[in-house]
Amino acid sequence: MRGEFELIARYFAPLAEAAPGAQGLLNDAAVFDPSRDDSLVLTIDTMVEGVHFLPDDPPGLIGRKLLRVNLSDLAAMGARAIGYLLAGAFPKDVDEAWIAAFAAGLAEDQEVFGVTLYGGDTVATPGPLTLSLTAFGEVPEGRALSRATAHAGDEVYVSGTIGDGVLGLDALRGGLRALDEDQRAALAARYRLPEPRLALGRKLVETGLATAALDVSDGLVADLGHIAAASAVAAEIEAGAVPLSAAARAALVSDAALLAALLTGGDDYELLFTVRPGRVGELAALAGRLDLPLTRIGRIGEGQGVRVLDAAGREMDLPGGGWSHF
Amino acid sequence: MRGEFELIARYFAPLAEAAPGAQGLLNDAAVFDPSRDDSLVLTIDTMVEGVHFLPDDPPGLIGRKLLRVNLSDLAAMGARAIGYLLAGAFPKDVDEAWIAAFAAGLAEDQEVFGVTLYGGDTVATPGPLTLSLTAFGEVPEGRALSRATAHAGDEVYVSGTIGDGVLGLDALRGGLRALDEDQRAALAARYRLPEPRLALGRKLVETGLATAALDVSDGLVADLGHIAAASAVAAEIEAGAVPLSAAARAALVSDAALLAALLTGGDDYELLFTVRPGRVGELAALAGRLDLPLTRIGRIGEGQGVRVLDAAGREMDLPGGGWSHF
Repeated sequence: MRGEFELIARYFAPLAEAAPGAQGLLNDAAVFDPSRDDSLVLTIDTMVEGVHFLPDDPPGLIGRKLLRVNLSDLAAMGARAIGYLLAGAFPKDVDEAWIAAFAAGLAEDQEVFGVTLYGGDTVATPGPLTLSLTAFGEVPEGRALSRATAHAGDEVYVSGTIGDGVLGLDALRGGLRALDEDQRAALAARYRLPEPRLALGRKLVETGLATAALDVSDGLVADLGHIAAASAVAAEIEAGAVPLSAAARAALVSDAALLAALLTGGDDYELLFTVRPGRVGELAALAGRLDLPLTRIGRIGEGQGVRVLDAAGREMDLPGGGWSHF
Repeated sequence: MRGEFELIARYFAPLAEAAPGAQGLLNDAAVFDPSRDDSLVLTIDTMVEGVHFLPDDPPGLIGRKLLRVNLSDLAAMGARAIGYLLAGAFPKDVDEAWIAAFAAGLAEDQEVFGVTLYGGDTVATPGPLTLSLTAFGEVPEGRALSRATAHAGDEVYVSGTIGDGVLGLDALRGGLRALDEDQRAALAARYRLPEPRLALGRKLVETGLATAALDVSDGLVADLGHIAAASAVAAEIEAGAVPLSAAARAALVSDAALLAALLTGGDDYELLFTVRPGRVGELAALAGRLDLPLTRIGRIGEGQGVRVLDAAGREMDLPGGGWSHF
C-alpha cells in the first residue's frame, strides 16, 4: 500500500478542495473564518469496528454513517453544517481499495449535505478500525437548541419514524423473518444510513418553535429522559402516538413484544423536541414544507423521569424505560 | 464501574466548567462564540495504546501528551489555544481509577495552557485504548502560519533542542546505558511530556518574523522536507548547527552514530520555521523574551528536497533523509 502521505494526497485531499482553510491538508491544522454574529457548534463521535459497524460492511456506508451521526448532533443544536475533521486508526489489513471506497462514500455525502473535509489524522492500530469525526457548524449567536430548556406544560414532538434503526440491525442479523425482503431491506437501510435532520433543526431555530431538543441516538425513552433530567422536569409518552414506518408496523403485527425494542432501541437520529402548547398549526405547516412528519407523542410535566403509557393509559414497564433517573 | 453518564458527570464535566458553551457536557454538541476578526484553527490527533503510549504509562501523562501534541499543532499555526473535544474508545479493563488519573492529568494541563474541555464521546472497544482529541484556537484573520510559504533565501530556525524525544523513547526502552540516571530521566520526560511552543507561535504571528512554520513531529529532516515540498523550494541543514540538549550531547559522545536518529527521529514538538535573512537581532531578542533558544540551522534555496551537511560541508546519507521527496 502507498504511504500515509500519498494516501492522504490521493483520497482525502480531494475531499478538502472546497475548503480554502484546509489548504490541501498540508498544514498542522485547518483554518476556518467564522461568520460574524454566529456561534460555532462542535461535536465529536467515534465508531469502532465490531461495535458500531461490522467488518464486512461496505466502507462507503461506514464513512457516510460516521459523518451523518455527527451531522445529526449539529441538527439537534439547530446548526448549519460546515465541515469536519477525520481521525482514523487503521489496522494493517485495511487496503487501498477499502480507503478508496470509504473516501468515495464521504465524497457522496459531502455533496448531499454541503460539507467539506478540513483536516485529519491517520495512525496505525493493532486493534479494530477506529474512526473519530469532529463536525462543526454555525448557529445564530444565543440561538442554539439545548436539551436543558424544556418546561412543564410543553408538548413532546418527534420527527420521522421511531424504531427503524433497531429493527434494521435486527434484520441485518437475520431476524424479522416474518417481514418480506423489501421491508427488511428498508429497515436495514435506515440502520446503515441515518438521515440527519439538519433542515428541521435550522427551522426550529428560525421559528423559535422548540423549547428543547436532541437527536434520538440512545433510544426514544432514554433520550426523553435526558431532556427531563437536564431540564428538571418529568415527561410522558403515549406509546400509541409514536410514529412508526410501514415496515415497523408490520414487524409489530408479527410480534407485539417488539414495541419495547422500538421505544428503547437507539440509532433513530430523529429530532425529539418540546414545544409550547397551541402551536399545532405552525408545526403542521413546517412538516408540510419539509415533507417530514412531525408527531406529537407526549407532554412535559412537573417532577422527574419518563413515563410511557399504553393505549389504555396504563404505565408500561419497559427495560431501561419507565420511571428511570438517567 | 459506573455507567458512561456517571463517569462523564464525575470526571469530565468538571473539566468543562469554565466553558459556558460546553453546558456541562449535557448537549449533543458544544457551542463556542468566536472572536470577531479572528480565524478559527482546528486540529485532530489520535493516540493508540501500544503504538503511541505503553499500557502501563501513567494515565495522567497519556492525557497530557494527547492534549500537548494537539496544542503543538495550534502553536505551529500561531494560534491561541482555547479548548478541545475528546473521544475515547475504552477497553473493558480500563477501571475508574485509570479514568480519574487520566482526567486529573488533563485538569493539570488545562491550568498550564488555559484551555477547557468543550465536549466529547466515550465508546467501548474490544481493542486497545484509542484516544482522539480535537483542539481549537484562534489566530488573527489571514495571519495563520503555513508550511507552504517559505522562499528561496530564507533562513531555517528551530526552537529548543532536537532529538530528545527519540532518545527519551530509547531510554524508556532500556537503551542509552552509557548515560547517567538523571540524563536518561530528562530525555524520558521530554518524550512523555512535550512542550507545545504556543507562546513562540503567537509571537511569530505578531512580529511577522516567520515566512513558514510547522512543528517537528515526524523528525527534523522529514518535517523540513514537508516545508520544502509544500513551498516548492529546497532546504539545507548544517548538522553541526542543530541545537542539542546536554543529555543528547552526552549520548552523541558515547555513540556518534546516534546523530542520524536525532536528526530523523520525531516527537520533538519544537517549532521549525523560516525567516527572511537579516533578522538575527529580532530573533535573539524574542528568544530572550521567551527564554527559549531559537537557533539558525540552515537555509532555503531553489529546487526541491532536503540536504543535510556534516561539519566538513559534505552531504550526509541519512535514512529517510538526504534528498528525499516527501
